[in-house]
Amino acid sequence: MPPSIHPSRLNASIHGTASAFGPIPDSTGMRRLALSAEDKGVRDWLVTACEELGCEITVDQMGNIFAKRPGTAPSSANVKPIAIGSHLDTQPAGGRYDGILGVLSGLEVLRTLNDHKINTYLPITLVNWTNEEGARFPGAMMSSGVWSQQSSTNLEAAWAVKDTEGMTVKQALIDTGYLGPVPCSYKENELDAHFELHIEQGPLLERASAKIGVVTSVQSMTWYEIRVHGIEGHSGTAPMPTRSDALVTACLLIAAVRDAARDTTLGVATVGVIKSATQSQATIPSDVTFIIDIRASTDALVAQLSTDVFRRFDTIIAHEANSTRYETIRTWSLPESLFDPTLISCVRESALAHCEPSEILDMKSGAGHDSAWTSKVIPTTMIFVPSKDGVSHHPDEYTSPEHCALGAQVLLESVLRYDELVRMSMEDPEPEHEA
Amino acid sequence: MPPSIHPSRLNASIHGTASAFGPIPDSTGMRRLALSAEDKGVRDWLVTACEELGCEITVDQMGNIFAKRPGTAPSSANVKPIAIGSHLDTQPAGGRYDGILGVLSGLEVLRTLNDHKINTYLPITLVNWTNEEGARFPGAMMSSGVWSQQSSTNLEAAWAVKDTEGMTVKQALIDTGYLGPVPCSYKENELDAHFELHIEQGPLLERASAKIGVVTSVQSMTWYEIRVHGIEGHSGTAPMPTRSDALVTACLLIAAVRDAARDTTLGVATVGVIKSATQSQATIPSDVTFIIDIRASTDALVAQLSTDVFRRFDTIIAHEANSTRYETIRTWSLPESLFDPTLISCVRESALAHCEPSEILDMKSGAGHDSAWTSKVIPTTMIFVPSKDGVSHHPDEYTSPEHCALGAQVLLESVLRYDELVRMSMEDPEPEHEA
Repeated sequence: MPPSIHPSRLNASIHGTASAFGPIPDSTGMRRLALSAEDKGVRDWLVTACEELGCEITVDQMGNIFAKRPGTAPSSANVKPIAIGSHLDTQPAGGRYDGILGVLSGLEVLRTLNDHKINTYLPITLVNWTNEEGARFPGAMMSSGVWSQQSSTNLEAAWAVKDTEGMTVKQALIDTGYLGPVPCSYKENELDAHFELHIEQGPLLERASAKIGVVTSVQSMTWYEIRVHGIEGHSGTAPMPTRSDALVTACLLIAAVRDAARDTTLGVATVGVIKSATQSQATIPSDVTFIIDIRASTDALVAQLSTDVFRRFDTIIAHEANSTRYETIRTWSLPESLFDPTLISCVRESALAHCEPSEILDMKSGAGHDSAWTSKVIPTTMIFVPSKDGVSHHPDEYTSPEHCALGAQVLLESVLRYDELVRMSMEDPEPEHEA
Repeated sequence: MPPSIHPSRLNASIHGTASAFGPIPDSTGMRRLALSAEDKGVRDWLVTACEELGCEITVDQMGNIFAKRPGTAPSSANVKPIAIGSHLDTQPAGGRYDGILGVLSGLEVLRTLNDHKINTYLPITLVNWTNEEGARFPGAMMSSGVWSQQSSTNLEAAWAVKDTEGMTVKQALIDTGYLGPVPCSYKENELDAHFELHIEQGPLLERASAKIGVVTSVQSMTWYEIRVHGIEGHSGTAPMPTRSDALVTACLLIAAVRDAARDTTLGVATVGVIKSATQSQATIPSDVTFIIDIRASTDALVAQLSTDVFRRFDTIIAHEANSTRYETIRTWSLPESLFDPTLISCVRESALAHCEPSEILDMKSGAGHDSAWTSKVIPTTMIFVPSKDGVSHHPDEYTSPEHCALGAQVLLESVLRYDELVRMSMEDPEPEHEA
């Protein structure tokens, strides 16, 4: 019998840290931007909590925190730890579960192992990845991306990213005391595998009355920044036919983004950010910027949908642009990520120990996660638990204590199952030859 | 022969005050928001300059500054001053001429009258109206509106208006020392007539190679704030058909505003301000606000164009809104303003003394001005001079020193012509009866 995690202790750590480090008053919302004072607060708390468990803490050059609980494998075996990772930062008006559940469940797993004096074969490392949200410092999943060395944003580029006040990531790392000495690289700071428990952030589990999502992949995604340029003018004196109105053009393009995704059904496309440099009621806007987020299950589908979007843009510009023009910058992309079959099996078997088969759903992740980057270089998978009404990135984000506890229990058992597989393969590496 | 204004002195006061009070570095742009430190600076400068001319300074409850040069009319005649008014505040990135030219030309008129020891019959009062731009404190032509008592924004409402930092107009008046004791009312602080020299802010004079615009009216204008409400969601997990995307709906509506004005040719319609509460690339926007500015030559045409806009909105919401909804608030309106025929004649005759008839253009003002409000309660007119490329509300706003000087000269002579008409009518009130 595997040990049981402690549901009320998990619940207390979720809501205790939420109340202490970045709560939005009069709501269950959170504002804990990466490397803010609130983020530093919860990081310090996490480090202390892990040290109390006897973990060895290391911090890398991107502020990623690694808390390692030792295993029994002989050091001669040159073993690498099994990671349980997610993030503690939030959106500007986010909730108490996105990312946070994964880290605090990982802590609960370590505590449970300690409570029951369980020795794993491999070390277990809890990871808090820095700036997953990309909300303060643009670039989601920033530090797992650097660690994987598969992101276009390398260490130097990530360090140079600035928030809206002009503060760089590197300076914020220094200021919070989280610019660590360990190289941020999967080659120099190795992990054996990566498990991540996360809320679904969508409605599918709830709609299916399911409790656990077995995540098999993360969809492909690309962001484009579009800058539309027109000419400022006075709203009362410039005749309609002579106008070069950047906002009107931007609006036609944004509607076309929606139309492309709706008409082709290749994937989803969203404009979540729009900014107009002009902010006067009586002025025709000259410079409008917006960001397109395109996602589909494969890289090829993202490319196909992008092509459709930009073909529509060309048509609009040719027929309606009134001498506005636009530039496109592909700011960020995350290729499709396939998770590891062995780890997926560990999750499925662990879930089946607690759920009816109908309560377990195989699913693709629509959202990006740190696991998408780790999956590029080490075996990785994720476990999803239901999000009430599919709501996320919002103070109303909610997952019940029962679902949180179930997720943490499945996480614990998945890690133990995988550890046992590794132990068996290491101790008895070639069983067939001995038969 | 009327006296000549001093072109280089006028030019020096325009560019001297621009450099001293709110210049935008490395440009000829200005940032002199109403009741800011920069605005206080130029106000103090103006008061000193007028006091040096022997003017009596009064400040009303909205911070409007009145600098009165006495006339010769007996006090028994109960005369009211002729006002020369405009404003010294600018847009956040405005130019050196909008409003500023009118006030500093008025100062130049007073200086010229002093230089030549000319006694007018009526007193001449230079007026600096507070917060014409409505850029810091929303509500353009705020204080001339209060003075006229014809605006929906009365004194208490204007005092309560806040800037984005939460500072009220009243507090800003107190802090700058410009909360005066004089009632802000045309009934208690009377003026006989209002002349305003202003840049055209449009391309018509330049295109016609004309030098002076004789302004016969200000078009009717109305602003609507539109708030679109949808439901936030994750850009990666919410399927397209289930979305309630407030930004997509807002974009369809904004395009419809343009279409309505373009298709009907009833007037002009512009969206200059858009704000989305959501500012995350990965979040479907839930709350988008924009402001529509509709203008046409008559109130009836504005109403007709507004009806057309909102009919298009209803069609869009009915067919494409995906359960988004919107609210409309009519935030502000300025009825059509007809200027006074006698004052218009004074301007035309003064212009003809310096220009070929082909260099004078009768025109309607597309922009709102303090004169629009004064015209509701006293005889009013305006003089326009050319704007290079029609550009305004922008650092590139430019009017040549020659056009500025010509405008000031026409202003001076228009005031003297009108003063002479009043003197004649007062000294010889009923000539027909005596004939």
